[in-house]
Amino acid sequence: MNDLLLRACRREVVPRPPVWLMRQAGRYLPEYRAIRARHQFLEMVTTPELAAEVTVQPVRRLGVDAAIVFSDILILPQAMGMELVFEDGVGPRFREPLRDEAPLERLRDPDPVRDLGFVLEAIQRSREILAHEVPVVGFAGAPWTLASYMIEGGGSKQFTHAKRALMQSPEWAHALLDRLATGVGALLKAQVEAGAEVVQIFDSWAGVLSPSDYRTFGLPYLAKSVRIAATAGAPVIVFALGAGWALEELARDTGADVIGIDWHTEAASARRRLDGENVALQGNFDPSWLYAPVPVIESRVRTMLEAFGSRGYIANLGHGILPDVPVEHARAFVDAVKAVGGN
Amino acid sequence: MNDLLLRACRREVVPRPPVWLMRQAGRYLPEYRAIRARHQFLEMVTTPELAAEVTVQPVRRLGVDAAIVFSDILILPQAMGMELVFEDGVGPRFREPLRDEAPLERLRDPDPVRDLGFVLEAIQRSREILAHEVPVVGFAGAPWTLASYMIEGGGSKQFTHAKRALMQSPEWAHALLDRLATGVGALLKAQVEAGAEVVQIFDSWAGVLSPSDYRTFGLPYLAKSVRIAATAGAPVIVFALGAGWALEELARDTGADVIGIDWHTEAASARRRLDGENVALQGNFDPSWLYAPVPVIESRVRTMLEAFGSRGYIANLGHGILPDVPVEHARAFVDAVKAVGGN
Repeated sequence: MNDLLLRACRREVVPRPPVWLMRQAGRYLPEYRAIRARHQFLEMVTTPELAAEVTVQPVRRLGVDAAIVFSDILILPQAMGMELVFEDGVGPRFREPLRDEAPLERLRDPDPVRDLGFVLEAIQRSREILAHEVPVVGFAGAPWTLASYMIEGGGSKQFTHAKRALMQSPEWAHALLDRLATGVGALLKAQVEAGAEVVQIFDSWAGVLSPSDYRTFGLPYLAKSVRIAATAGAPVIVFALGAGWALEELARDTGADVIGIDWHTEAASARRRLDGENVALQGNFDPSWLYAPVPVIESRVRTMLEAFGSRGYIANLGHGILPDVPVEHARAFVDAVKAVGGN
Repeated sequence: MNDLLLRACRREVVPRPPVWLMRQAGRYLPEYRAIRARHQFLEMVTTPELAAEVTVQPVRRLGVDAAIVFSDILILPQAMGMELVFEDGVGPRFREPLRDEAPLERLRDPDPVRDLGFVLEAIQRSREILAHEVPVVGFAGAPWTLASYMIEGGGSKQFTHAKRALMQSPEWAHALLDRLATGVGALLKAQVEAGAEVVQIFDSWAGVLSPSDYRTFGLPYLAKSVRIAATAGAPVIVFALGAGWALEELARDTGADVIGIDWHTEAASARRRLDGENVALQGNFDPSWLYAPVPVIESRVRTMLEAFGSRGYIANLGHGILPDVPVEHARAFVDAVKAVGGN
């Protein structure tokens, strides 16, 4: 197997950095759109055959060094009893958001095998199709990110409901976050047991909290999820979008093997700040740079690789790939990492 | 006159830090909503009597040390010929966004006195009503923020149109940004000449660009606007939301008198990083903390004031006040600054 990703997670010497793209199984791929045209998003997520097919598409098309299972972070709250609605053009939302200290006893503690078997089966099927060609990455949302979705009901501009809950009902919020931390950890552990060689936690709304609030409501629960997940033995990547100020604390307090760097943070600064920590780094090409002409992409990849260095480094975007970038530009990004990184 | 703000901008010794709130003339005030119920937003902005009335409301209600003129950053692009539409619940948008290298000759270079006289008159009237009680703050949007609005057509989640323009048509973008930098500078200068004692530039979408892109497309044009505005002799505050990484560069490269700190950045870290620079600091109370009980607000104000210190500091929020916070909590914030800061 191409084990570049696993070796980079362990900070071993590698011939070149591994490369994959967050949200690589997505709408920028014509073969993804072809399947999406015939199926609803949630149907694709919950049907292992479809999810596995889409999971392996970017390996074929781009030659990336990992396949991330096609799924969604909101399947966990859904399994806890929150009814999820996907409407085209609006994005996912919960039919009944958690508001005003809604009784948490209503929420179930899901058993991943019984309640989320479809994602575990999607991982198994992806592995079969790939025949150990590249590792499969499992993932989940971080407790704070899931909690804010559950309270807001969906995406939000200012997250006023979620923030008001933290300020007005901190004990209720802590109880919710603790339930989520356990659930996230269990889901990640189950994904590793189903065959995922690496798992990533997305704290997509980390940047919505000020540093002191993130230390109170974000980091401790993220750390708990990582601790549970890590018992399964696979490397854990933590990606906290918009929390560049927290890199050192993410490395020290969560015990993650890899810290994802977003595109807001400068590569050289991230490397310098995490130099003494026992972690690998992943990131952080600005997704909008894939709009640039190919020679510009190549030149910026070179700059990024120089800043990160080749040891303990996974080349990736600094956030999910945008749905309207040309496939050839995504391919140019991957090729440039392989060409430059192999020198 | 209460000249605490002016003295803090000049980093003079003051008995206590001045305090005001970004977006303080806004929906959280019942007396604002009473006027807004009878008038459209744009009507209020362009009618000096209404704008002045709303401008002074927070001085009366909260006892803040400055009045910021009630206006909108998009009046400049509108005066350049972009038709602005305000729809309730949607926010402002331009009827015809600038796309695909739209010819920039179509845009006018507005004369502030002739084309934006309403904001200048609102400043004059506010000064008359306040009778020199507190200074009046003028403002404008930064070139990059205005350009991204003009290209997107309105608010945006990922700013894909604006970013694609930067990547695919950088020369066109530079030409647009340069036109805007001149216009922003001229508008701020005219506001000072009309009586504004301080001006602030809001780079509300600074955080939408990665550091290297902000250095290319944001900072140089922001600096040009500051240079032009500063010729009028009043202190200039620069507030670049989401660009906490850039504090030192904002201080050194723009020549601003005051650097606004957003709530993503820790107060102590901002103070430390700007310690050697010749600038005052403004900020940075998390607006969502105004949802918390009053004793929590008071305690966090104390922490903030200790971190910033009293010299060269203006107490403020770290972003605009949220529309649904209780007025008494806004008042508690102001009172706490006065009480703690006066000790």
